[in-house]
Amino acid sequence: MHIPTIHTPLIEGEPMTAGAVTTPKGFSAAATTAGIKPSGNPDMALVVNEGPEFTAAAVFTRNKVFASPVKISREVLADGQCKAVLFNSGNANACNGAQGDADAREAQELAAERLGLEANDVAVCSTGLIGELLPMDKVRAGIDTLARGLGSDAAHGSAAAEAIMTTDTVTKEALVERDGWAVGAIGKGVGMMAPSLATMLVAVTTDASISNEALEEALRKATAVTFNTLDIDGATSTNDTVIVMANGASGITPSQDEVDEALLSICESLAKQMQTDAEGVTKRVTISVRGTADDAQALEAARTIGRDNLFKCAMFGSDPNWGRVLAAVGMADAEMNPEKISVRFNGQPVCVDSAGAPGAREVDLSGVDIDVDVDLGAGGPGVATVRTTDLSHAYVEINSAYSS
Amino acid sequence: MHIPTIHTPLIEGEPMTAGAVTTPKGFSAAATTAGIKPSGNPDMALVVNEGPEFTAAAVFTRNKVFASPVKISREVLADGQCKAVLFNSGNANACNGAQGDADAREAQELAAERLGLEANDVAVCSTGLIGELLPMDKVRAGIDTLARGLGSDAAHGSAAAEAIMTTDTVTKEALVERDGWAVGAIGKGVGMMAPSLATMLVAVTTDASISNEALEEALRKATAVTFNTLDIDGATSTNDTVIVMANGASGITPSQDEVDEALLSICESLAKQMQTDAEGVTKRVTISVRGTADDAQALEAARTIGRDNLFKCAMFGSDPNWGRVLAAVGMADAEMNPEKISVRFNGQPVCVDSAGAPGAREVDLSGVDIDVDVDLGAGGPGVATVRTTDLSHAYVEINSAYSS
Repeated sequence: MHIPTIHTPLIEGEPMTAGAVTTPKGFSAAATTAGIKPSGNPDMALVVNEGPEFTAAAVFTRNKVFASPVKISREVLADGQCKAVLFNSGNANACNGAQGDADAREAQELAAERLGLEANDVAVCSTGLIGELLPMDKVRAGIDTLARGLGSDAAHGSAAAEAIMTTDTVTKEALVERDGWAVGAIGKGVGMMAPSLATMLVAVTTDASISNEALEEALRKATAVTFNTLDIDGATSTNDTVIVMANGASGITPSQDEVDEALLSICESLAKQMQTDAEGVTKRVTISVRGTADDAQALEAARTIGRDNLFKCAMFGSDPNWGRVLAAVGMADAEMNPEKISVRFNGQPVCVDSAGAPGAREVDLSGVDIDVDVDLGAGGPGVATVRTTDLSHAYVEINSAYSS
Repeated sequence: MHIPTIHTPLIEGEPMTAGAVTTPKGFSAAATTAGIKPSGNPDMALVVNEGPEFTAAAVFTRNKVFASPVKISREVLADGQCKAVLFNSGNANACNGAQGDADAREAQELAAERLGLEANDVAVCSTGLIGELLPMDKVRAGIDTLARGLGSDAAHGSAAAEAIMTTDTVTKEALVERDGWAVGAIGKGVGMMAPSLATMLVAVTTDASISNEALEEALRKATAVTFNTLDIDGATSTNDTVIVMANGASGITPSQDEVDEALLSICESLAKQMQTDAEGVTKRVTISVRGTADDAQALEAARTIGRDNLFKCAMFGSDPNWGRVLAAVGMADAEMNPEKISVRFNGQPVCVDSAGAPGAREVDLSGVDIDVDVDLGAGGPGVATVRTTDLSHAYVEINSAYSS
């Protein structure tokens, strides 16, 4: 029997997953330094599906203000087919009006031409500063370089992961290997992470043969409990995009359960990597809520706690200040019994029936991981978990100094 | 003709308003150091209405988790009458279960006894750490001292203002003098300021003769555009309370318009003082939204921007990063035309029709006050203004180090 393995490079002792996105058969990638980033770091990438199938599914930002590449990629994915994804970092191509749309369209068409594809099979993703026009001379030259530099080895996959980084400090790759088929992914995202999607770009590749319906269902289920419950700072970007491409090159058609499980593993790994690399993070905080009417209300309550700056500052200070949990959750639009709320920090009761538990102020929160469990006392079946971080000096520093 | 004057002590050149709360005829106050605060600073106060009338109105926190003193003061104010307000700082008496209720009740009853009043005419207000029982020995002794130390001069009024401070760095007093009558107030509040009320305790006194209906209407209208639109960090406290007492000692019965105007002036002054003294503030940011369906949607949009940490960090950095305004407002539950949004910083256009305006990156935001004007482009009559602050290192420092 094959034992499935998940590789998450940020967890100590796990093997690295260099080249994850090109590990499934029939995918190639390329990266280049087009000069969009002032830093001179790599800033363009391309991931290409060589077939034989071109099934694709995607989820996009729910922000009403969305970037030109999101507009175009939504059109591309509408028919459930995608053959290539073009990325650039250093510039979000958001809030650039008609010129932004035209630039994204030109990049899409040029990449399609160089790859011998229809424009409508090429998605485009951008991340970086909002409100600056793309430097199209550099983008055009970059596309030429990318189209000539495709390769399916690990180095090409990892180079693509590096080229989509913004304030990320490490590349984010994830790989799931199953019996004869695999799923690989690259992602980026460290701030502006919230509601519907963490601020992120993700490309997932698999050589399994998966129908559109099965792929969409698996992606929807996986994002609901991973990226959609990762909430670093309550902000949702203009550019969030997750695209999954399946090409059937392995000749294997997994069951829906198998696809669900593999995609969930991939998304969980990337979400955890993003949480660990979040801007200014010194703590990973996992907030679980129960004891309310339904899962939606539990999620609302967990988000409300996870977005409360006073709570987040207390976590930064390793301060078991459970009063801030109650003050925050009391504003949530969720059923609760205000006199029967209980809170545990790292498994230790700090508040029982909305009052302090003995020893509550002495709970040790000095470690990197903090679990906060809240029972709203209303007795319903609702449960939800949200992952967030503390609010640190470094978060303020990064986001006041970096125009992004 | 009498020219009305508003005194706001934090605005340079304005006269101080020492003793504002005892300036209206027929009010006395006292303060003491009961030993509740570890710092040894004053921590209990009493404001007493000596009549002849005892009309009162109040607004309280909308947090579902509210403190024991809020529960009791709601009962007191239910009949529209209040003769005294007992304050303590250093301990919020929130989330203390049945013992918290019993302690607040005992303090109320003891104060009433010492003042020769019915318990149901004495409101109680607490502010400070959540989840610690009140040190009742100290509270009892403090009440004795307060009841013996009442005075109606300026020193007694200002001492009360000082004794309700927590992380406030300055006392907050406001005074409006009209033709033969006056309105005075003390307030505290510097953090956990948001949605329905800024986190605050406020006592307003007036020697005008005002009916319950008129007082309630004026208070409701004034808080809607002052405390309720002051949003420092999106957090709403368990203890927010604003109580107004009118005693008719001046013999003057002002019109509703006159009461409205005076109460609005008082609340505006205190709200501005709280914004200026907000935890870690380096910028006062005023966000005005128009161009949406109605005022409620404009308010929702302004709040969404004012709570966005990325936007607030940009303000701290004096960075005219208008893209963060668009990214934030795109998540607001408000009607907008995502391609017709306009933004001005300090009156200068930085974004027109959802794209950057010439010179947008060069706008000077180095001053203390920043005005952000947003037109959502949907053409409706909705308008709203929210006052907030930047998100600074000092905010993180104060709230990670201070268990409050």
